Formats: sequence, structure tokens, C-alpha cells
Amino acid sequence: MTISRTATTFAPPVMEARRWLDGATFPPDRPLINVSQAAPVDPPPEQLRRFMADRAVSDDSVHLYGPVLGLPELRSELAAQIGAHYDGTVAANQIAITSGCNQAFAAAVHALTGEGDEVIVPTPRYFNHKMWLDMAGVAAVPLPTGGGLLPDPDRAAALITPRTRAIALVTPNNPGGVEYPAALVRAFYELAQARGLRLILDETYRDFDSRTGPPHDLFADPGWADTLVHLYSFSKSYRLTGHRVGAMAASAALLAEVEKFLDTVAICPPQIGQHAALWGMRNLGQWLAGERAEILDRRAAITEGFPALETAGWRLLGLGAYFAYVEHPFALPSDDLARRLVREAGVLLLPGTMFTPQGDPAGTRQVRIAFANLDRAGIGTLFDRLAGVSI
Amino acid sequence: MTISRTATTFAPPVMEARRWLDGATFPPDRPLINVSQAAPVDPPPEQLRRFMADRAVSDDSVHLYGPVLGLPELRSELAAQIGAHYDGTVAANQIAITSGCNQAFAAAVHALTGEGDEVIVPTPRYFNHKMWLDMAGVAAVPLPTGGGLLPDPDRAAALITPRTRAIALVTPNNPGGVEYPAALVRAFYELAQARGLRLILDETYRDFDSRTGPPHDLFADPGWADTLVHLYSFSKSYRLTGHRVGAMAASAALLAEVEKFLDTVAICPPQIGQHAALWGMRNLGQWLAGERAEILDRRAAITEGFPALETAGWRLLGLGAYFAYVEHPFALPSDDLARRLVREAGVLLLPGTMFTPQGDPAGTRQVRIAFANLDRAGIGTLFDRLAGVSI
Repeated sequence: MTISRTATTFAPPVMEARRWLDGATFPPDRPLINVSQAAPVDPPPEQLRRFMADRAVSDDSVHLYGPVLGLPELRSELAAQIGAHYDGTVAANQIAITSGCNQAFAAAVHALTGEGDEVIVPTPRYFNHKMWLDMAGVAAVPLPTGGGLLPDPDRAAALITPRTRAIALVTPNNPGGVEYPAALVRAFYELAQARGLRLILDETYRDFDSRTGPPHDLFADPGWADTLVHLYSFSKSYRLTGHRVGAMAASAALLAEVEKFLDTVAICPPQIGQHAALWGMRNLGQWLAGERAEILDRRAAITEGFPALETAGWRLLGLGAYFAYVEHPFALPSDDLARRLVREAGVLLLPGTMFTPQGDPAGTRQVRIAFANLDRAGIGTLFDRLAGVSI
Repeated sequence: MTISRTATTFAPPVMEARRWLDGATFPPDRPLINVSQAAPVDPPPEQLRRFMADRAVSDDSVHLYGPVLGLPELRSELAAQIGAHYDGTVAANQIAITSGCNQAFAAAVHALTGEGDEVIVPTPRYFNHKMWLDMAGVAAVPLPTGGGLLPDPDRAAALITPRTRAIALVTPNNPGGVEYPAALVRAFYELAQARGLRLILDETYRDFDSRTGPPHDLFADPGWADTLVHLYSFSKSYRLTGHRVGAMAASAALLAEVEKFLDTVAICPPQIGQHAALWGMRNLGQWLAGERAEILDRRAAITEGFPALETAGWRLLGLGAYFAYVEHPFALPSDDLARRLVREAGVLLLPGTMFTPQGDPAGTRQVRIAFANLDRAGIGTLFDRLAGVSI
């Protein structure tokens, strides 16, 4: 008896963590600090909400099916903006719009791999990538990153087998926060190119990168689409998580394969979310710059406040985008710690065990803090609570 | 070298058919009659559009992530309405909301099957079911239905092997239109039960069933959830195709598996679409009854008009929901015919070859007419054009 595809993987971590809250109570003067999920807690700006309201009554097309690969205008706009952002060249027919960035990853995997194939994935890794590879029957070959959280192309090269089809990177990284240097991204690209693999590059958090200028130069290569599969999300940038809009940039030939998957699992991305993303790209550039500045200021607050936690034995491993990835000082595994922090510190965060292969000792010492929803005062309170934990 | 999952299946038929229109022109006095896709061409009623507009500005939660398995209120409401519609008992935790009904099917397959398993599928079959099974590495074992388009449980029983995991039926049928008699549905349910299989029952078009009373009695069995996986769509009933909202009713244990798939491929269903579906269920019962009456009247127009087509050699095989499934009189395969009908009759329909296994002689003689968007006059014009074709 075969086991089903879903039985090959684990339960959704974010939902599991939410269940740790069952039965816990938090006094009004010490409310829960939830740093478990990387998602805005505020809605989009009012102009964008008004735009959506207007479309709902005035534009019939938002209620009807659209093209499988997304609204042509949105594909064009994103192609142009990627070109500008990365100083490269992307055509509209090299863009697919998806129902969220997870779906873009899933579509890429199905278009690139078959049963028993392999994809190299740096660890710690984003859990939904691991879950999809499991369900696709594809081995997520772990590439441990060590203390600096940056993957090593030479170690990756040593992991390539005849079944390897792709290397999947996330930059800025989830869960690690680290921004991969442009030269590192290029080294992986050249490795993939040399070995006939694809480089899947998930840049969901690109709009919160602390660096100015293009984060890498791959789109400047005329032949980028032969190797690169770039993933993006509108969810964080324009606060559209509930509308499910992500994207992929890849060769038109690969997108013809992706179209089969998207047609079957989604038919089309939600139309009103696509219109919102398009309006956001055209009108919220200034606003998004402010969002980025705010996140970077919160990130600075983490840097400034962390020495107090270091005194208590914590170590900052990675910081960027929405995330701080840290080593805790306690003699218990991170999943036990995370459960106890709910009651003992009023803090919900995700343990490193959710981001690492089973039995990986690194994961048991690490936790992820999705800090983006905490202002400076909130970060101070979080640090006070964590520093005060005695176990 | 393995081939990728998407390479194991064909291109989306609806998108392919749309490409047949490239370069074709239609004079103003003889516009294209598009009966290729089963989708409303009108938006939802104005009150529902106004409701969505109001939520977009007044309810922050529509813009944020929701639970993977859907809004609790919508799960409860659908559970109650299924209970009422089928005279049975369904609990809210036996409902999952999905991003469209295709996704519900995909999730069910991933929760029930592994590589190399088999699902029995009557032919002609809905192409997206076949595409998903292909991509999942699951054999779609064809169960030919013959002229009456009703599958035979005894023939199905003979196809069961140790790798069979489920039987997947669609009623009212797509593409066949036929409404499966309650006794037939029960016979398949009892077969599945006796052999330890699941019965996947896609009832996307249930709200346009011509029969009064429950279309089957499976939900009245206290143990229905051990065998039945019921699929539903809000898209056709409330004209929400662009919002992507479908549903599954199954055991809570199976839904825990389904949750892994949905978390990874979608995170959550689009929130505003879920609110719209909930509002529709609570407020549009009367309106939906009118929609049904209109579709049934159009169906009657097909019945009344068909004798004229019969004279020209056409034969009506199945009729119901959005579809007429017919045999054409020409000596060329249906896919060639369908392409020629674009230019020679100004009609876009899908050929039977899109609904049948490659090489199946039945498919070459059949075409599907998705008539729901044609009023009586439009149906008359369609029939005139088809009767006038000489090839």
C-alpha cells in the first residue's frame, strides 16, 4: 500500500504554532507578542482599498475568469519593473502571475522535476518549499549553511547527482534574514548553468532588502531565462496577503509548462488581487519606500538591542527582511522552548526545528523571530521578555 | 533523464481553443458564438458587488491571511446548507474551502494517492481531472460510458486493482451534462465502500440540477465521510469565477491531510471571495433559484430545437447543467471539426477528443456545447449555423 503524497510531509508549521495558543491566556498588561508569521497585520493603504472597492462595482471583469498566466497588463508592468530594479531585460511573456508565491514555487517544481528527482536546498529552509518537494516526490537535498547562514557553492556542487534538477535559494532569506551577496547569487547561477540545472531564486522579500541598487545582476545576462526561475510576491509589499498574488519570471517555454499546472490547480489568479497589485505597482512606489524604511529602522532596533540578549546567552545568526534568526541559550530543543515561551514569556515564535531536517542539531538551538510587525517599543518589550526567561 | 510532471500531460484545452481564434474575424452581423467554456459571462448581482466593495474598505481582514481551510463562518454555512440540500448531516470541520473546485480535486488526489496509484474515471471526462492525475503520477483508468453517458458500476468493479484508490464521478456531468440517478451514485458509493476506496463526487453544477429534492442520499449515511469526498464550487452559482472559491466535504481526518496541500499551494483561499460566497449563500437563495430556472429554460430550448439538427445528422447524447454533449455527422475527427467551425460557422466549442483518451473513437465523433450563456435566440442561431455546415 503506497502512502499518499500528503502523508509524506508534515503539518503546516504556522497552523501548528497557532494551536500552541489554545488554552493560553495573556493578561492585558502583558499581551501575546506574536512573531511567528511573516505577514503584515495591517491592511493595504486606504487609496488601494478604495480602488478595489471601485473595481468591485464598476469592472465586471474582476468577477470573471482571466487568463491562466495572469492579466496581460500586470505581466507587462512587472516585467518592466523587474527590468528596472535589476538593471536587466524581462519580457511580458516571461512573466506568470500566480495565486501567491508558494504556488509559483510549486509550479516551478512541477515544470522542472519528476518523481525521484532532487533539488538542492540550503538549510535552514523555508518549510513550505520542503513540504512541496516532499509531496512532489522530489528529494530536498539539504545544503547546511553553518553559522553565517550563507550557502557555499562548492558544497552545493558536491551534492549534484544525475537526478539533480535545480538549486532553490531564498534571498533575502526566510528564515535566516540574510541578504545573499550578488557575487554569491552569481556563483550559484554559474554553477547551475554549467551543470544544466535551473536556479530557483525566491525573492519574496526583495522590496525590504537593505542594499541600494540591484541585489544581483542575473537579469542583465541576455540568456538569464535558460537558467533562472525568479519568484516574487505582492503580498508583503502591498499588504495583499489575503488576495493571493505572486509571480514567476522564467523562459516563455517553461511558462508554457507552468501554465498546465496553474490551469489545473487554480485556473487563474484572483482577478481583484491582480488589479490591486497592478495599481500598487503603478501608484505606491513612494509608499513602499516608506514601508521599507520602517522595516529597516526596526531591523536597526534589533541590532541596537541585541547586546542585552547576548548577555543572556543569545546569539544573532542572521538579520534582514522580516526576520531575525537567533541561537537560544537553553538546554532544551527549540520546539520545546517555543511551546514554553508561549506561557512563560507570552511570545509566539517558530523553532529552528521547523526549518531544518529532522535530527539536525543546528535546528534545535535556533528560533526565528518575524519582527516586522513590532515597532521599536515592541522589539524592546520582546527582548526584555526573552532576556528574563529562566529555564 | 526523467521528464517533468507537467510534461506528462497536455496543454490546457480552454487556452488552446482560445488560440484557434487567432487571426479569425467575425462580421458584425455574424459574431462569434463562444460555447467553449463553462463560465458565467455576467458579473454577480449588484448587491453582491456592493457588498464586496463595502468589505474592501471596511473590513481589514479581507486583505490579510485567513485559516488554511477557510473562513469558519463559511465552513459552517456550507455544512448547514449541504445538510439541508441533501437531507444529511455535515459538520463544519468536515468542510474545507479551496481556491476553486479544481484545487479541491487536486487536494483530494494528493491526500489519497501516491506515485503509481490509480483512480477510475468515466469517459468522456473533465480534462482538468485527467491533467491533475497525470501530473500526480496517478493513472486515470478510463471507464467508457457508451451512448447514454452513464457509467456502469459493474464495469468499474472489474477495473479495480490493488493500486486503485478512488473512483471520481462528476454529476451533473461535465462534459456530458447528464444527471446521475441517485441509485447510480449510491451503487458507486457502495462499491467504493466495499472495496475500501474513496468516492470523489464533483458536484460543481449541483445548483443547476433539473431534479427537485436531494440528488443522492449519501450524506444521510452517518458514516458518509469514511467513503465520500464531495466537491463543490461557488463560481458558477454566484458568478464568482474570478474570485476562486470552491469547497470539499470530507472526513476531518482527511482534511488534516488536505490542509498540508492547501497550505503549500495556496496558504489560504482568497478572503474577499470567501466573504462573497458566504453573503451569497445567506442572501441569494431566491436569485439563484431564478438562475436555475433560466438555465433549465435554455436546456428546454435545446431539447425543442434539437430535432432540426437531427435532420442534419447530429445526435444529442447528454444534456444538463451547462452542457449539451453531441455526436456530429461529419467524416472528420472532432478536433479538426472544431477548428473548422470557428471559420465556417463562427462557433467555438470543444471537441470530444479533449474529453477522451487518445485514440478513443468516441471522442472523435463528439463535441461539447457549453450552452449556459446563450439565451433562446442564441441557441436558435447556434443550431441554424451548425445545421448549415457542409463539410
